[in-house]
Amino acid sequence: MRITVEEADSGSPAINRNAFKATIRRQKVVILGAGFGGLAAAMGLRHADVDVTVIDRRNYHLFQPLLYQVATAGLSPAQIAMPIRRILSRQANVTVLMERVEGIDKEARIVQTANRRIAYDYLIIATGARHAYFGNDEWAETAPGLKTIADATEIRARILSAFERAEAAEDQADRERLLTFVVVGGGPTGVELAGAIAELAKKVIVRDFRRIDSSSARVVLVEAGGVVLPAMPPKLSEKARRHLEMLGVEVLLKAAVTRCDVQGVTLADGREIQSSCVLWAAGVMASKAAKWLAVPADRAGRVHVDRNLNPPGNDDIFVIGDTAAVTDESGRAVPGVAPAAKQMGEHTARAILANIDGRAVGPFRYRDFGRLATIGRKAAVADFGRIRLSGLGAWLVWNIAHLWFLVGFRNRAAVFVDWALAYVRYDRSARLITDRHER
Amino acid sequence: MRITVEEADSGSPAINRNAFKATIRRQKVVILGAGFGGLAAAMGLRHADVDVTVIDRRNYHLFQPLLYQVATAGLSPAQIAMPIRRILSRQANVTVLMERVEGIDKEARIVQTANRRIAYDYLIIATGARHAYFGNDEWAETAPGLKTIADATEIRARILSAFERAEAAEDQADRERLLTFVVVGGGPTGVELAGAIAELAKKVIVRDFRRIDSSSARVVLVEAGGVVLPAMPPKLSEKARRHLEMLGVEVLLKAAVTRCDVQGVTLADGREIQSSCVLWAAGVMASKAAKWLAVPADRAGRVHVDRNLNPPGNDDIFVIGDTAAVTDESGRAVPGVAPAAKQMGEHTARAILANIDGRAVGPFRYRDFGRLATIGRKAAVADFGRIRLSGLGAWLVWNIAHLWFLVGFRNRAAVFVDWALAYVRYDRSARLITDRHER
Repeated sequence: MRITVEEADSGSPAINRNAFKATIRRQKVVILGAGFGGLAAAMGLRHADVDVTVIDRRNYHLFQPLLYQVATAGLSPAQIAMPIRRILSRQANVTVLMERVEGIDKEARIVQTANRRIAYDYLIIATGARHAYFGNDEWAETAPGLKTIADATEIRARILSAFERAEAAEDQADRERLLTFVVVGGGPTGVELAGAIAELAKKVIVRDFRRIDSSSARVVLVEAGGVVLPAMPPKLSEKARRHLEMLGVEVLLKAAVTRCDVQGVTLADGREIQSSCVLWAAGVMASKAAKWLAVPADRAGRVHVDRNLNPPGNDDIFVIGDTAAVTDESGRAVPGVAPAAKQMGEHTARAILANIDGRAVGPFRYRDFGRLATIGRKAAVADFGRIRLSGLGAWLVWNIAHLWFLVGFRNRAAVFVDWALAYVRYDRSARLITDRHER
Repeated sequence: MRITVEEADSGSPAINRNAFKATIRRQKVVILGAGFGGLAAAMGLRHADVDVTVIDRRNYHLFQPLLYQVATAGLSPAQIAMPIRRILSRQANVTVLMERVEGIDKEARIVQTANRRIAYDYLIIATGARHAYFGNDEWAETAPGLKTIADATEIRARILSAFERAEAAEDQADRERLLTFVVVGGGPTGVELAGAIAELAKKVIVRDFRRIDSSSARVVLVEAGGVVLPAMPPKLSEKARRHLEMLGVEVLLKAAVTRCDVQGVTLADGREIQSSCVLWAAGVMASKAAKWLAVPADRAGRVHVDRNLNPPGNDDIFVIGDTAAVTDESGRAVPGVAPAAKQMGEHTARAILANIDGRAVGPFRYRDFGRLATIGRKAAVADFGRIRLSGLGAWLVWNIAHLWFLVGFRNRAAVFVDWALAYVRYDRSARLITDRHER
């Protein structure tokens, strides 16, 4: 229990309870990042007598599981993003600041941002992860990843521009290269992206072109491992692969990428795929939390934390979500998914409340509610432990679950309208090529 | 009538009608720009036996009258933009190319784009206008205008960032400067922008901040002339001004801007307004059509055309919409509004059809259906000649008219949902700060 009595030498031995309370400084909780973890922590402190400051370099919370839909023109950015202030506007003990974190002084208990120094008593680091190229950073320019809204609109522009350029191309080889899309990485993001691109090419825009047949587009999913969706049970992985192939996606397994440039990719076995649009869904690297704290991290930059989500020796600091390497009680790694981040945020809020009250709190336990991935318009795979679904049933569960967890009634209503119309009309509403370089 | 008989020396005096028809080359109509004018021209040629090529440097048609709603976070870009291909997908005689026009060879009848040369028999130039600073181009960086989606998301980011920075500011003078918004220009765009910003500050986000009172924001509309909405009857201009002032907008008339930089603006009478967010709605400059054609233009860069919408001496070239300076039969200038552009596009299609058939067509006549401008959530002014509305009635007409003319059922449904929810909940769904410089 950490209490700062500001006038400790008041001299009176008979402590007036109210006067004492008034001299206890309200504890300051600073939360870095307003993703699923950071928001859950802030909301978990809503009834607490603490000052909460949420710092994020963006003004919005992003519903990342639907980001691939922005990248493939199914949804607009505003439909999956919500201003952080709006989400927390009724929670009076929260202040939101849009700032970029530059460092942390653990001794002085200060967060340094570009513009100010912010003192904390408890610090929650929930700054997430970015996609990573693991030693091949030069691939970033030709093979963008998908973590932010800017990434998604960039990928959307690249996909749509490829069809535009193919329509204008005079040369057959050019046209084939322009109509070949390579998605690197067979996890949920890669599977969802590849399925959505295939559907876009083969169903949605097929009547729009005169000189090319967009349905002849080649979509190749390249995965270094032996299966897609490796976190799923083997049967569902196999079903996902079959669903992808039914949509016309070529799935290349045990195919590591060794070269990636504007011409396309080369695989470890020497095969070359000519493509003007390579998308990266093969790995993530955690934010700089380990560097800020000067504590050990794993290969993906995630801070090693104990069962209380503290980096060893830092009981006032919690690292959660994709920034933390957490193992559950059975020694398995907790996956980098939204529900896990949310549970860590909730746990952290409980731990801080218990700490202030002088109570004990148990270690973090991850409750696995299952996994979901969608493959095109009408198929998905779902693993809820004993219940495993695939096809239309899983797709309906996927849609309902994502609508349900999407923040805000208004976004839910808008996304519902869009999905219902997309289902009926095979349309995609957000087919804009917007250029970040252009005014 | 222009017919190219490809085998003119076939020798047979007894012309077989069908054989003759087959040797007539299908006339090529090239349309530059897919705004209201260009699209109307393409659609007007839907039953014509011609090859139509629509060239635009973007892949979408933009519903410009609602662009200010994107700039003030009320709508998403995809709600007011529609892929050009999608709009024209069922019209088999149209090819759409996303290219940037670089020049026109009138002698050879060729349009030169960045990548190709495109031959035409008839050319329709409908490339619109950009906002302009009339000799003060250095103001562009500090006072963005509103013509494209990129402009709108940039303005949205500036407005929302100003509130964010004010919340973080420690200094009262900084805070006041950050909470002062200056809109330069009292035409429809300026009036609509100023009204929407005032409403955003005073109603929508007022609960979201802890350190600032967003409703104390100062919104100043600066107009060089003596009235706002000068194209409206004086009574409605006066009503618009009063509505703006009821929303808390300071309206400064006869106030020309003489300096504009990051500190704010200076007016001709020496007054200075400290502001971190100056928006430009004071003037437009037509596209480069006059330069491409080497023909005379007016001060705003608009090509002088005759009553047939041809630049004098160029019967195969039509210049329409905001790129043309057109006077109607009574000698008045046709205004640069969407319905006028649409009517010119329709007229041009009719003129080309008549020309191919060897028929005559009358000169272009502008039918003025009235003017509309909206001021905040529940007031507008409307001038339909004898019928003049203001307040809630005009606002309802404004909403219905804009929904009606918005392209595509899906967009209409989405915008309707958003407006209905905004009306009930005083919310704005698209409050994202996205940075064009950031990946």
